[in-house]
Amino acid sequence: MLHEVSIPDFRSERGESYPEVVLSYEVAGPPLGSAPLVLVCHALTGNSTVTGDEGWWNKLISEEGAISPTHYTILSFNIPGNAYDGREADDPEAFELRDVARLFLLALEALGVKELYAVIGASMGGALTWQIAYLAPTLAKHIFPIACDYRASDWLLTQTLIQKQILAHSSHPLEDARIHAMSCYRTPQSLNVRFAGQRDSRGTGSGQYDVESWLLYHGDALARRFKLSAYHVMTHLTSTIGVCEEVEALARIRSAIHLVSIDSDLLFTHDRAEATYEALRALGADVSLAVIHSIHGHDAFLMEYEQLNHIIRPYFPTHV
Amino acid sequence: MLHEVSIPDFRSERGESYPEVVLSYEVAGPPLGSAPLVLVCHALTGNSTVTGDEGWWNKLISEEGAISPTHYTILSFNIPGNAYDGREADDPEAFELRDVARLFLLALEALGVKELYAVIGASMGGALTWQIAYLAPTLAKHIFPIACDYRASDWLLTQTLIQKQILAHSSHPLEDARIHAMSCYRTPQSLNVRFAGQRDSRGTGSGQYDVESWLLYHGDALARRFKLSAYHVMTHLTSTIGVCEEVEALARIRSAIHLVSIDSDLLFTHDRAEATYEALRALGADVSLAVIHSIHGHDAFLMEYEQLNHIIRPYFPTHV
Repeated sequence: MLHEVSIPDFRSERGESYPEVVLSYEVAGPPLGSAPLVLVCHALTGNSTVTGDEGWWNKLISEEGAISPTHYTILSFNIPGNAYDGREADDPEAFELRDVARLFLLALEALGVKELYAVIGASMGGALTWQIAYLAPTLAKHIFPIACDYRASDWLLTQTLIQKQILAHSSHPLEDARIHAMSCYRTPQSLNVRFAGQRDSRGTGSGQYDVESWLLYHGDALARRFKLSAYHVMTHLTSTIGVCEEVEALARIRSAIHLVSIDSDLLFTHDRAEATYEALRALGADVSLAVIHSIHGHDAFLMEYEQLNHIIRPYFPTHV
Repeated sequence: MLHEVSIPDFRSERGESYPEVVLSYEVAGPPLGSAPLVLVCHALTGNSTVTGDEGWWNKLISEEGAISPTHYTILSFNIPGNAYDGREADDPEAFELRDVARLFLLALEALGVKELYAVIGASMGGALTWQIAYLAPTLAKHIFPIACDYRASDWLLTQTLIQKQILAHSSHPLEDARIHAMSCYRTPQSLNVRFAGQRDSRGTGSGQYDVESWLLYHGDALARRFKLSAYHVMTHLTSTIGVCEEVEALARIRSAIHLVSIDSDLLFTHDRAEATYEALRALGADVSLAVIHSIHGHDAFLMEYEQLNHIIRPYFPTHV
């Protein structure tokens, strides 16, 4: 069930004033305040429904998964403008990711939350996890930035620029942007192994290669379930990932930092996660780095959920 | 200087008849018939000017490079529809890559060429090299398929589908397609090392990241120098790379096969070149595989020309 919380008098990084920003959110498990609280930050086309039958992360946050929603309260806000709550942004570039983090923190305050057991997120949700911890360095006991970066790399900026060009210039913006995005989430090997050069293997007579049908299907599917304005918002936010200029500044975070990266991820490469880990370790931060081994690339954060469960489970005991 | 050769009565793979197809070409070095002949197959936005001041491959084919245009005659055809000779295709999907190879072979016949010292090409030009050798297995003494594949991988089909969607739907088709293509030619590390997250380092006040300015510049530059119809033609040809179904069929080629691949190439991955090499070696083919080491990805075939020269030079002696 969607709830709402109102943030009054918000001033954005861009310097604009909002008399009110309404955030929608969902809570799973024990009511707020009755169990350790886990804040989940959703990714580009995700939303506040992270667990349950329709949850986008129900392999991780479930009785079988690493985080039990019986023992932990699960809180997730919708990023304003993702339109899951029916609200579309007037200006898709109104906020930066830092604004979103500040809004989430103000919402937590409004809800009476003074401490978090953990913040977890992957991809843009992982960047948001970094940003929240940076702005509120003592709020959470643990943070899990997964398959992400604290700062947009030139490669990420390249992909977001392509996305923005498609959104600005295409007569089929959502479909085409999604098809391109799919290629960022995978590796050559992932697609080559899966489709093996097969053509029209369902016998539809289209003559299309299977990989082409799959991409076009996913383009259409997103266009049916997602709003164009929301995709604009999320793409813009992705291009604004920039928690701090220098990695050393992350050392102000007092939470235990559990980095997770994917060895084949092209969008958020392992080498950058490793550099972040090494820099923080050298400064004595409480930091670890775990690696998901996969041929699939960025999407492995959803596909290789058994590895992710294995990495995360020890930090979410159900008998304490 | 552009020359022309006319191919009468050509029937395409698609079954269409052409009373005449005119191919344009350039010759560098000794006149045809007076020295060993090297056929160079150009890549996506390349053309028949491979050597000389304006040549797109003048680091490789020059007195300083591996192939001396004093000792070898250099022949290069324009792929029909690339518009370098002023001719634009009426239907950008009229030909497959196999048609192009057949046209080149008919043109060689018309020019009285009965044997080639070598065929060389990279990227789509490398696929064309494979295709020519497959159709005329005893024509060339050596072939050099560089940074390419004999068959489009699912990853390549993914990228060509994105290119086709942009071309079909964008109001800035050439610019946007080129920006996307640039990302296929590089690696995350290549861009991250080169631009290091710098913003507006030329002080233009644009606020753009340097990588964004660079991509937009290259989009504009291509749009100024290249025809939209030609980009359509080349993109379609790329999606039709399919010399044969099974790699074993390549063993009919009697030339010495010198594969060159780039260890970081994402568009034409090294693992596929290795698989091709292993399969042909197992069949007793005269095949070798050399690797260009680079962080830059596909573009390394132009960027790491010293390595490429080093690999190729031994096969082009100037004192025989």
